[in-house]
Amino acid sequence: MDQVRGSQSLIFSQAPYIISAASVAGSKEGEGPLAKLFDLVNDDDLFGAQTWEEAESNMQKEACTLALGKAHVTAEKVRYLFGGDLLRQGIATSMGVEALQIPMFGLYGACSTSGEALALAAMSTAAGYGEYMLAVTSSHFGSAEKEFRFPLGYASQRPLSAHWTVTGSGAFLVGTRKSHVRIAGVTVGKIVDYGLKDSQNMGACMAPAAMDTIVQNLHDMEREPDEYDRIVTGDLGYVGQSILLDLVRGKGYDIRKLHLDCGMTIFDQETQDTHAGGSGCGCAAVTLASFILPKIEKGEWKRVLFVPTGALMSTVSYNEGASVPGIAHGIVLEHC
Amino acid sequence: MDQVRGSQSLIFSQAPYIISAASVAGSKEGEGPLAKLFDLVNDDDLFGAQTWEEAESNMQKEACTLALGKAHVTAEKVRYLFGGDLLRQGIATSMGVEALQIPMFGLYGACSTSGEALALAAMSTAAGYGEYMLAVTSSHFGSAEKEFRFPLGYASQRPLSAHWTVTGSGAFLVGTRKSHVRIAGVTVGKIVDYGLKDSQNMGACMAPAAMDTIVQNLHDMEREPDEYDRIVTGDLGYVGQSILLDLVRGKGYDIRKLHLDCGMTIFDQETQDTHAGGSGCGCAAVTLASFILPKIEKGEWKRVLFVPTGALMSTVSYNEGASVPGIAHGIVLEHC
Repeated sequence: MDQVRGSQSLIFSQAPYIISAASVAGSKEGEGPLAKLFDLVNDDDLFGAQTWEEAESNMQKEACTLALGKAHVTAEKVRYLFGGDLLRQGIATSMGVEALQIPMFGLYGACSTSGEALALAAMSTAAGYGEYMLAVTSSHFGSAEKEFRFPLGYASQRPLSAHWTVTGSGAFLVGTRKSHVRIAGVTVGKIVDYGLKDSQNMGACMAPAAMDTIVQNLHDMEREPDEYDRIVTGDLGYVGQSILLDLVRGKGYDIRKLHLDCGMTIFDQETQDTHAGGSGCGCAAVTLASFILPKIEKGEWKRVLFVPTGALMSTVSYNEGASVPGIAHGIVLEHC
Repeated sequence: MDQVRGSQSLIFSQAPYIISAASVAGSKEGEGPLAKLFDLVNDDDLFGAQTWEEAESNMQKEACTLALGKAHVTAEKVRYLFGGDLLRQGIATSMGVEALQIPMFGLYGACSTSGEALALAAMSTAAGYGEYMLAVTSSHFGSAEKEFRFPLGYASQRPLSAHWTVTGSGAFLVGTRKSHVRIAGVTVGKIVDYGLKDSQNMGACMAPAAMDTIVQNLHDMEREPDEYDRIVTGDLGYVGQSILLDLVRGKGYDIRKLHLDCGMTIFDQETQDTHAGGSGCGCAAVTLASFILPKIEKGEWKRVLFVPTGALMSTVSYNEGASVPGIAHGIVLEHC
């Protein structure tokens, strides 16, 4: 039990590595600030498919294949796959990873799913349950608008607090083979509910969960914020960031200079009309794969707390007047 | 790595225990063959709520609370919770377990989710990540019909191959504290797709996945079927069972005398008009908690392979003409 820290965290006595990562992104992401860092950008957002859902599945398959290829590992060598997406019944993942034929655990953590998948892949590797594990998540603007809001053809107006769902998929090969990035520990998130009900303001809904996980990580690990080079949230966006910084300050910590949000990084707010920022399971995943991991690999950042954030809602819960609680999982990434 | 067996299985060197279990069921289940075995049966299928979704959440909360109470363990002592349901974005689970404030992993494996949750709870316990883990799943006839088929008020006719979604939730406290049932190992399932597209015949869609996991378990564990006292599938029902027995026979094994299906056990087909049998995340969970575990506890059955089966589909994938692949996870339960 020496790996257990505080009430929610683990520090791995044998930390697993992120051996390789891959990012697949859509056309709008390919016009944004991270354009040149993605492994694959497709101008056709249907990714050769007939439907948005199948397009999302194709992205997942492509991201997994790329991550495996970079590490020269075949799918048969991967012990377990942990994957998820935003769609009802996680259908993009089921259809996306089917061809790989890897024993799999389907996950749902809304936009926090990349953290959930990385945590379970790391936990399974550190426990000696296999040499290689795959973590994959995705989101697609077309399928997400159809799932949660209106058909694209309606051209609905969106409030400035609304996010733009990222079209993208990130895959991560986690395992025992040494690389320059290790998953040193995790902080598993609790559901945090401040009673907010506005699904067009997800940043506000998720910020309390991000605060809770970040503060819990600092307590559990007995660290000060500046022991991290960056604290990276998933998709709080501009609205959520200001709330997060306030809430964290209320707990006695100042993370203003350390904080970075994937949803604010992936799009250029001024030129891309993306309002509060990017969101979706793919947002944090592709930003991690393309932008954050290379910096840790090179040693530019020595230790990063990666905290993807999810808003737990469905169209049914929204229509029934339920609140939108949040959840966030913390992944401690270290250069090695 | 000494715990890894074959290509998909684990045998735990320190096997975790199922310390306690609880079952909460609806009125129809309360009129069936297992009626007297459930911990709680509510004649009001709304479980005091205003909506089917909230009713399902209430069942989950109740099942968790009962399982914790039986073991005299408080929620604060539970390290991680693994839970899921059938609804879009797993909303019954998010809303159901929120009040417990246990760090949680949301799962989606359709009706196989109870196996997925038990596998991850066991893997986390065996790895030393905590003393207590909670695994919980649920389904509700009202919320499932609304999610996947038609509003109840339509009184749609259903084919004889259709299942009846179980209104129920099962919760399991897994941990290091000794009991009379241990989780000796797991076989994590792959997605198996025979190209079937009929969502009103889920038994046929899931039978190939059940066969795949059962045969893989026998290979990985180097066992013959009769080393199990029972091989228990989740919700193949009458149609799926006959397909399973045929498929398994095609692989050189005869499990006719060992096989039991939760979907065929929970309802009386002749008097309850449930057609192919029960289904849903709650079906296998409440049958395990109420009927199977007590037999293992008493030593009546020494070793059972529990294989919940899931059909991976959504209304969107169905409407878009996609096939309905299956997945099944195997949990090896032993008397001790």
